[in-house]
Amino acid sequence: MSLEKILSSQEQPRSQANQRVIGIFQAANPAVIDIQPALAVIPGMTLETILHAGPPIEWARMCGPMRGAILGALVYEGRAAGLSEAERLVERGEVRLAPNHDHGAVGPMAGVTSPSMPVWVLENAAYGVRAYCNLNEGPGRTLRYGANGPEVITRLHWMRETLAPRLREAVLRVGEAAGGGLPIFPLVREALTMGDECHSRNRAALTLLLQALLPGFLAADLSASAVAEIYNFLVGRDYFFLNLTMAACKAAWLPAESVPGASVVTALSRNGVEFGLHLQGRWFAAPSPVVDGHYFSGFGADDANRDIGDSAITEASGLGGFAAGGAPAVTGFIGGTAHELMEANLEMYGITAAESPHFFLSVLDGRGTPTGIDVLKVAQSGVCPFVTTGIAHREAGVGQVGAGRVRAPLALFQAAAAWLEEQARLEMEKK
Amino acid sequence: MSLEKILSSQEQPRSQANQRVIGIFQAANPAVIDIQPALAVIPGMTLETILHAGPPIEWARMCGPMRGAILGALVYEGRAAGLSEAERLVERGEVRLAPNHDHGAVGPMAGVTSPSMPVWVLENAAYGVRAYCNLNEGPGRTLRYGANGPEVITRLHWMRETLAPRLREAVLRVGEAAGGGLPIFPLVREALTMGDECHSRNRAALTLLLQALLPGFLAADLSASAVAEIYNFLVGRDYFFLNLTMAACKAAWLPAESVPGASVVTALSRNGVEFGLHLQGRWFAAPSPVVDGHYFSGFGADDANRDIGDSAITEASGLGGFAAGGAPAVTGFIGGTAHELMEANLEMYGITAAESPHFFLSVLDGRGTPTGIDVLKVAQSGVCPFVTTGIAHREAGVGQVGAGRVRAPLALFQAAAAWLEEQARLEMEKK
Repeated sequence: MSLEKILSSQEQPRSQANQRVIGIFQAANPAVIDIQPALAVIPGMTLETILHAGPPIEWARMCGPMRGAILGALVYEGRAAGLSEAERLVERGEVRLAPNHDHGAVGPMAGVTSPSMPVWVLENAAYGVRAYCNLNEGPGRTLRYGANGPEVITRLHWMRETLAPRLREAVLRVGEAAGGGLPIFPLVREALTMGDECHSRNRAALTLLLQALLPGFLAADLSASAVAEIYNFLVGRDYFFLNLTMAACKAAWLPAESVPGASVVTALSRNGVEFGLHLQGRWFAAPSPVVDGHYFSGFGADDANRDIGDSAITEASGLGGFAAGGAPAVTGFIGGTAHELMEANLEMYGITAAESPHFFLSVLDGRGTPTGIDVLKVAQSGVCPFVTTGIAHREAGVGQVGAGRVRAPLALFQAAAAWLEEQARLEMEKK
Repeated sequence: MSLEKILSSQEQPRSQANQRVIGIFQAANPAVIDIQPALAVIPGMTLETILHAGPPIEWARMCGPMRGAILGALVYEGRAAGLSEAERLVERGEVRLAPNHDHGAVGPMAGVTSPSMPVWVLENAAYGVRAYCNLNEGPGRTLRYGANGPEVITRLHWMRETLAPRLREAVLRVGEAAGGGLPIFPLVREALTMGDECHSRNRAALTLLLQALLPGFLAADLSASAVAEIYNFLVGRDYFFLNLTMAACKAAWLPAESVPGASVVTALSRNGVEFGLHLQGRWFAAPSPVVDGHYFSGFGADDANRDIGDSAITEASGLGGFAAGGAPAVTGFIGGTAHELMEANLEMYGITAAESPHFFLSVLDGRGTPTGIDVLKVAQSGVCPFVTTGIAHREAGVGQVGAGRVRAPLALFQAAAAWLEEQARLEMEKK
């Protein structure tokens, strides 16, 4: 029996399941309610755990930047005095490695989340669920890009000891004033009208966040110089906002992960070796592609690691490549032309289940962004999700080398479609 | 002899004059250096003077919102206890009325600038000239839209007594740190990549300004609650930035006003009765058009005054309608579609002398905005400058009723072209 026939036998229940999945995302209004150490809030987090981006992967198969980030995190945590000691810890099996997504968390690039790292706490109050993401270090030589030198560890310590507690003061006050935390989707929605696509361009979103937090900083018991130190760090670190968007998206999709029978994904996510998708709470993976890159001076395609990070949850949520037509200035960072971005963005309407009630494209006179990637539509059309992304050096310890554009691999959606076909066959046989 | 022949006889000197005019604008980097009472800084300002928008016009011919604003300003200044006493002052000839532009100043809508009003001081250091603009009150019932009730006067007093001195503290500190003031064109340039066209949409520009001023506020000897009061007023009052853009543009064109022989205008400007242009330091005017409006609830075209304000200097500078293709979200305020804005924006390349080295359109892959309106190109093509604008109620005392899109009148450019023709004829006869 053909794929089409088997699948069409389940079309009605699948369509209903997809509507439930999309409905859950569309109804969400995730709000940041706190900043806490990962150990204190992430379910299943232990002192031995290091979480990472993408689908599950064992140490031996991990790419350079993910290894670099994990080793750096062990030094940052004080579990090892140096990188080689850290490596021995991992090789002796004394570090538990697991995907962020399996713990209600997300992280950009290597996505490494270690126990003492401060994380954003996002609440999806309608479903009583929470999601988490670490704080963004900014551009260049950073842990999430696999860098792990002393300046990286020092910055992370400053973020834990100084940035996080002061930021928390502001977040709590603003959240209290708003009642139930500071909602993130309204900031994203506004940023989309201001030239961001909220994956690889977050300039407006960061300015809106800083503006929203200012009353909290002014109301907190902080000196002017203490506030100035925080603003000096944050202004220009546009990606600082990305982690909030990612965690808000995770919080919004989380209740939908347990809906059976759907063909709409709740996340795209890469570990730097494999490109994964999350469907009905289940991982599917295929080899991760090379990014069409726009490189920093002194770097080129030979330096690039394959596509990596949980950040493509933004594309699954109608952002990033799925909103790039409204963010032509991102070409200055990821390459390409305004026209190419718009064409790719428009293509995404063909592989999605809905148009967003959260996020709108002014350039399309307010049309909702394409939302809810349907694996069957991708497998059948061959049109693959368009993702804007950063590029890590393929070796541990180096950092970011550029940014670019990539398509999720067709094989990934073919594998998920084959599984759906198998499920449909089993359902038919039951009857 | 035909218009073409007469004009072509002067083509070379005119082209050279236009290059000088454009070159002066393109070389400028105007910076805000201070906030001062109008009386203290505007050349020719006196205690009896009220400045207004647009080309010269006597009281008897003024439109309702301009009259309303002038009467309100006389109450604000304490020259009259009420509006009818203020009107008697004017009618007895005790108020000197003059255009802002003739005093190195500009003002949006009615553009009323009175002696004690705090004004932005913009310096074009390359030419040692300064330009001025009052502080923007925000949307709705405001003096610049002709409203003049107690809440309008109270707000203006608060702006003079509280807002201006605190804002000045921040401006002076930030300007000192930057050396020579805070340059405005870089903020405008950035805002254009963030969905503003910087005439009728200034959302990004305001967030960037507040971000730029924050270190100044934090360094000033102000309490947290004093800073919070200022931010609470400014956040969401997006047009607050417009007055800075206008004054920066005026400062940039000012040295070009004395260049003889040019056909490029240094300003478009309306008094609500006539639409004017400034060419070689000379006014030309024609009846001001009705705006294609997007009205606030409860108002319609019958309520609208004709187009008014000095703000169209933004269009003369490659902003507003001349950058609207990159600001599709402005349609939510002024009406129309993203496609219409882009088409109108692209048309402007046909009537301008240059592409901006200051301002760029990401949606056109970084092309400079069309800059330097050539009256001959307009008169010959019939393509008229596209302006985005607010709409005042036609009666004094009401305020803003909407916003919209308008074309400068062809008759205005025909009149200026006829004068250029006459000048060319005189030149020919000399030889």
